[in-house]
Amino acid sequence: MNKPLKPNPYNTDLDRNPANFQPLTPLAFLERAASVFPDQTAIIHGDLRRSYVEFYARSRQLASALTQHGISRGDTVSALLANTPAMLECHYGVPMCGAVLHSINTRMDAAVIAFQLNHAETKITIVDREFMPLMQEALALANVKPLLIQYDDPTFRDQTIAVDALDYEDFLMQGDAQFDWFMPEDEWDAISINYTSGTTGDPKGVVSHHRGAYLLAQGNALTTSMGKHAVYLWTLPMFHCNGWCFPWTLSAIAGTHVCLRYVRADAIWNALSDYNVTHLCGAPIVMSLMITATDEIKRPLNHTVQFFTAAAPPPQKLLADMKSAGFDVTHLYGLTETYGPSVVNDWHQSWSDLPEAKQAELKSRQGVRYLPLEGLDVLDPDTMAPVPRDGKTMGEVMFRGNVVMKGYFKSAKATQAAFAGGWFHSGDLGVMHPDGYVQLKDRSKDIIISGGENISSIEVEEALYRHPAVAIAAVVAMPHDKWGETPCAFIELVEGQTATAETLRAWCREHLASYKVPSKFVFTEIPRTSTGKIQKFVLREQVRDQTFIAE
Amino acid sequence: MNKPLKPNPYNTDLDRNPANFQPLTPLAFLERAASVFPDQTAIIHGDLRRSYVEFYARSRQLASALTQHGISRGDTVSALLANTPAMLECHYGVPMCGAVLHSINTRMDAAVIAFQLNHAETKITIVDREFMPLMQEALALANVKPLLIQYDDPTFRDQTIAVDALDYEDFLMQGDAQFDWFMPEDEWDAISINYTSGTTGDPKGVVSHHRGAYLLAQGNALTTSMGKHAVYLWTLPMFHCNGWCFPWTLSAIAGTHVCLRYVRADAIWNALSDYNVTHLCGAPIVMSLMITATDEIKRPLNHTVQFFTAAAPPPQKLLADMKSAGFDVTHLYGLTETYGPSVVNDWHQSWSDLPEAKQAELKSRQGVRYLPLEGLDVLDPDTMAPVPRDGKTMGEVMFRGNVVMKGYFKSAKATQAAFAGGWFHSGDLGVMHPDGYVQLKDRSKDIIISGGENISSIEVEEALYRHPAVAIAAVVAMPHDKWGETPCAFIELVEGQTATAETLRAWCREHLASYKVPSKFVFTEIPRTSTGKIQKFVLREQVRDQTFIAE
Repeated sequence: MNKPLKPNPYNTDLDRNPANFQPLTPLAFLERAASVFPDQTAIIHGDLRRSYVEFYARSRQLASALTQHGISRGDTVSALLANTPAMLECHYGVPMCGAVLHSINTRMDAAVIAFQLNHAETKITIVDREFMPLMQEALALANVKPLLIQYDDPTFRDQTIAVDALDYEDFLMQGDAQFDWFMPEDEWDAISINYTSGTTGDPKGVVSHHRGAYLLAQGNALTTSMGKHAVYLWTLPMFHCNGWCFPWTLSAIAGTHVCLRYVRADAIWNALSDYNVTHLCGAPIVMSLMITATDEIKRPLNHTVQFFTAAAPPPQKLLADMKSAGFDVTHLYGLTETYGPSVVNDWHQSWSDLPEAKQAELKSRQGVRYLPLEGLDVLDPDTMAPVPRDGKTMGEVMFRGNVVMKGYFKSAKATQAAFAGGWFHSGDLGVMHPDGYVQLKDRSKDIIISGGENISSIEVEEALYRHPAVAIAAVVAMPHDKWGETPCAFIELVEGQTATAETLRAWCREHLASYKVPSKFVFTEIPRTSTGKIQKFVLREQVRDQTFIAE
Repeated sequence: MNKPLKPNPYNTDLDRNPANFQPLTPLAFLERAASVFPDQTAIIHGDLRRSYVEFYARSRQLASALTQHGISRGDTVSALLANTPAMLECHYGVPMCGAVLHSINTRMDAAVIAFQLNHAETKITIVDREFMPLMQEALALANVKPLLIQYDDPTFRDQTIAVDALDYEDFLMQGDAQFDWFMPEDEWDAISINYTSGTTGDPKGVVSHHRGAYLLAQGNALTTSMGKHAVYLWTLPMFHCNGWCFPWTLSAIAGTHVCLRYVRADAIWNALSDYNVTHLCGAPIVMSLMITATDEIKRPLNHTVQFFTAAAPPPQKLLADMKSAGFDVTHLYGLTETYGPSVVNDWHQSWSDLPEAKQAELKSRQGVRYLPLEGLDVLDPDTMAPVPRDGKTMGEVMFRGNVVMKGYFKSAKATQAAFAGGWFHSGDLGVMHPDGYVQLKDRSKDIIISGGENISSIEVEEALYRHPAVAIAAVVAMPHDKWGETPCAFIELVEGQTATAETLRAWCREHLASYKVPSKFVFTEIPRTSTGKIQKFVLREQVRDQTFIAE
């Protein structure tokens, strides 16, 4: 950067003031939607309909009630909720009183939740009735003693769970619907904390700020051409990285949220058809769920639906099936540390003329930076030099820009390590293709080193996925006396199909270099996180604890 | 704002660093478009086609060449250009070397241009060959002696103008296409300066910054649901408020610019049809030009084209004609001080079911805030209290938020006055409707005070516009011995139609309170700025200089 030798005249008497500057915050989107489209349906949930003016009023009531209960700037409010209107209200009401929203994965165990509550110093926790026993178990283990508020979702009909706690609606009604909510003092102020979990055993509190949430929420709409009044179906859990910022995106475009407590094929198809859903998100497993539903469950669609997928590259057959069923699939990629998706497989029109196999190959790549992410590259983590753009040389995928987290909460060391060299180190290994599209090859901890050669577990899985009998494949390293490590494949078969280890071994020999062929095939149900991510650490534990014999 | 009594734990060890923060700038949009869609057509101009990779390379060359000629941060580069590729390159290349782009209205006279060059301390000026005589005249009057660069647009075929000056292409070729362009040091750094002109006699240099340009460029796409690869026709002059930030918006969505040197009906219709134009902008006069074209000139459209209009409310008949011709018209409003449009007549789906007259009435309102504008209201300028939302009580339209200018260049006093009370004072008078939509009633200097009563010149003009023979109406105050002021109407008739003062007076008596009926009707050609705005100050001068007798 060259410094000016003379004073810059454009910096004199041209300062920030209340008329020309305010902190960026996605909370302002809801205020606008409620003001411009007050009667527009903001939320559909079962029989419930909420307009934008109601959604905004209730969010302000929540903020007001939280304030009355002593919550102030920098306090943490934890939510253990399903994809319900209350969870949407938390995304606005909690930061509207200056507090930080901590969303808890509802499939975590009590010990993990207790750890998070302690670490985040939770002052109030809002809990769905279904998860009250889990929260009570967690609170018994925790040091913090937050005020407990119970949300009774009308679509949760199991009456066997009944806990005596302050009711969410009663709590809300204590608040003022005209509450003069707090703008952040600075757009760098925290809006949420999300603990990473699932694929590693090492939870860290990822802190997001208002500026990043504003930019990524807009980025979702801009990058995917999501227009005014889009109708969005909640198959992605909102506790997962703030639902990739879509709770805020929808207000920016005055769209409609369709909540969904249970991600089931019938509920998805009914919502798609009944509410003219235009967009939804999910891992490939959600697509499988939809596509493999029976014809009685499937409903006709009179428009193309946009499906944003992440977590794993969508296999070719699934893409073809989705296309015939009336869906346009976009492959996104990101991490909790990047506010959810910040990379998009931005499709070139000309690619649609290619053979389907080639299209699937192109679509399996994670892609390029979102508009609000300023830097994305694959670097050698030792030298921080970019790898050659050859689609082969592996390096670590790194991010920089305005939609990268503030850092890890109370973990200065982890934060510094993650940002070493001026880039966020994702821990994902990948290659850079000649056209600038990134493709993941593995998590750094998932790479298998066999006889000194690196084996990408994803490459082996992709070969297995191409076999018609394979529904899900997960490959991890297995200790081996001679080679150090060899691949071990866990397989779930397509219902009604059969395949033996011999069949699959022969298939792999055809499609892979011989040292990459798994030494062992285990037919089993594969453990997944609530968001559909395969839990490789569980598989690794199984490999370690059981005595597999390399065949 | 309540201050926390305890330190906010979310502000500890969670600071900005190169991995998670960089200044917002629209320049990054071009880098992305060139990287992701290198072969996408960025610019169409006559026979010329430029891809995004070429557009980006040439912009960097321009930045590099400017740097070689001593341009550095805070220097001004002035452009006197038509809507050509060079003008688009200036919108990137100039700020890419830290300089500030000063676009000059090509219809200004030499004295005004000389004033601007001096005031902005122009170091280099890039001038279309057609405007070289004008620039030379201006330079003869100016104190500054900028380096003069001549751009020879291939679609400008008049060879009688030939001036000996450094050629733009030669200049560009001195630059490095791989130039490591300068990010702004701060997103608050100036990106452009635009002098207000036309409707008032008092030019001020409006300074815009990178942050605002980034946000409004995105806001254009978000507010109007402008999707990926949109094709945008340049009927709006780019020298007008940086073309409302659309030079930057198009890069954000990897769209195509269709340049147009001359805004003529045949060229517009040909471009719409030949290039599948999806969007264009202009004053209602541009719509009139298109609609009144002969059938030989009109071309069939196979898709709905989005027309964004501003400067004056679109009359009902024009809206109806545009609709039948295949256009969807959106009414925008803003000022140079708000980066162009920052208010939108955000259409409600239900309004489309109303009678056409009602729709036109609703569409004539300026509307609501753009997504990146955080505040818009109609305030009493004395008390700064909002006027009642009754659609009747007049006040001053005021803006606040991130797409309000940095201030007026070298005019601390004017800046302070414009931002008094924490709002930007637009000088436009309007009302707030019960639904929160703003409607302009007049410029504060255009209001007519007759016998102590305020008369909105716009209200009188609207009554006149409803008369089938009136093409253009402009009403200004005329001094009157008894009443102080009375309205004087300047009228342009529709070609082939006739109307006398008596006819129009009778018409006004039917449609207006009697004290609002113009005392005088003048049938004449009405002076307009290059952007189609009526120059009321010229009319006022005519009223003052001539001796009209109140009839």
